[in-house]
Amino acid sequence: MDVPTYPLKGFNNVNRYKHQATYDVDTVHTIVNSTPVLHVSFVPDPSTLAPVVLPMIGQLGLYPGDESNGETEYSCYLHGYVSSRVMNLASSGGEGLPLCVAATKVDGFVLTLTPNSHNYNYRSAVLHGFGTIVDDVDEKLWAMRLITDSVVPDRYDNTRVPPDGAEMQSTRILKMKVTGASAKVREGVPQDERKDMKREDILDSVWTGVVPVYERLGEPVPGPYNRLKEVPEHVKRFVKEENAKRDAYAFEAAKKPAPEKRPKKAGV
Amino acid sequence: MDVPTYPLKGFNNVNRYKHQATYDVDTVHTIVNSTPVLHVSFVPDPSTLAPVVLPMIGQLGLYPGDESNGETEYSCYLHGYVSSRVMNLASSGGEGLPLCVAATKVDGFVLTLTPNSHNYNYRSAVLHGFGTIVDDVDEKLWAMRLITDSVVPDRYDNTRVPPDGAEMQSTRILKMKVTGASAKVREGVPQDERKDMKREDILDSVWTGVVPVYERLGEPVPGPYNRLKEVPEHVKRFVKEENAKRDAYAFEAAKKPAPEKRPKKAGV
Repeated sequence: MDVPTYPLKGFNNVNRYKHQATYDVDTVHTIVNSTPVLHVSFVPDPSTLAPVVLPMIGQLGLYPGDESNGETEYSCYLHGYVSSRVMNLASSGGEGLPLCVAATKVDGFVLTLTPNSHNYNYRSAVLHGFGTIVDDVDEKLWAMRLITDSVVPDRYDNTRVPPDGAEMQSTRILKMKVTGASAKVREGVPQDERKDMKREDILDSVWTGVVPVYERLGEPVPGPYNRLKEVPEHVKRFVKEENAKRDAYAFEAAKKPAPEKRPKKAGV
Repeated sequence: MDVPTYPLKGFNNVNRYKHQATYDVDTVHTIVNSTPVLHVSFVPDPSTLAPVVLPMIGQLGLYPGDESNGETEYSCYLHGYVSSRVMNLASSGGEGLPLCVAATKVDGFVLTLTPNSHNYNYRSAVLHGFGTIVDDVDEKLWAMRLITDSVVPDRYDNTRVPPDGAEMQSTRILKMKVTGASAKVREGVPQDERKDMKREDILDSVWTGVVPVYERLGEPVPGPYNRLKEVPEHVKRFVKEENAKRDAYAFEAAKKPAPEKRPKKAGV
């Protein structure tokens, strides 16, 4: 099947782990939109080459207003504290502030015969693009809903909305136009070098396998001023469904066949 | 008690959530060294201001050789694929390649009365500094052990070591001299604006509380060529101790009193 892919450009060309690299838009979107914290980098002071990385909440989405204007590519909407410095840079017109966004999930620790062959099972996506501030009120409200519902589905409609004037004022949404993206996925059992696979003494003495890793959601804890006797359905369902899914993924990944070629180094 | 702190500089001055900001070295080190994936950013092409973020494995540590030379500050040792571009930039002498490293842990989703007051319980650390390649063989071996044991304690000595010539060749360790760092921690119950706390209709209709979030380690899965009948003690202990700790932290954070001042925006 022909799936839409991101254009291959120098800066998003995954020049390693090629067997693990994908430019499949769905894969990139799934990783980004299921990662609770994105790491966003930019250069706050053009006079230096010192970058800054900030943790932010974000989602890839296509604003209906853009879609009706013929836009087909998703943008990344980012929310979280960004220094006024950065907001100013992003507001300074033009194509916007150069940004890079990374989303990474660890699915397991892959323990092999040697430190060098150690690896993670993981899913990682990187977006490149340019950020501007969302001024349009409708798009801003749409993005606030998108981001709130990314934390807990249907949460937005289960809170006091719409945001009032003061809240609209105090909230700023960064919209990143994505010019390139890539994803890398490693899943499967351990892999070692042929030279070590021949060593009986090592095979007899070193345990090899995968420690599955997954983000677990605990039983919701009502706050001090909560008055509702029951945890609402949208929260209950979210915790139940996510836990089933995440747990299953990590264990499946731990048992899959190893990638055709193994990474030459440990680490993600 | 007087704790060592990182120097306050423009670039690491947390100009928001001040009540949540800390420059306590122990806090920064604990967050960084307990985070399985660090997000490292740099500017690969000085002719643009386009940053790149890469997921890497890293640890803060003080190499005994540096300590004996009077060094007291920890460096961040990073392992993972870095394009030759970057390695070249980091090898080009001088103070090294400007880097920013972020470590973030999500401990809970804090659900409040309004989307704007939504927040995460989280721990976040950011390091600023300059990266160079580790050439010294002893320091490189020391760093490889440090990083391997950060995945699973005592793992290094339970594998085929030391790395042979080819492995030493193929492995590159990036050493980041830390020039500034900061950490932010949010823990506690939900907090809402006074204006919403006065609204009986909202308090009666919106559930508020925390969904604890923690990284869980699953039962170790032996690989296809593993010959050891038993999961070794160092792996068993790691899984058991980590799970007890992480689970406990997320639930405790969910029940603590809220920070004195609440963040003005949702998001980390």
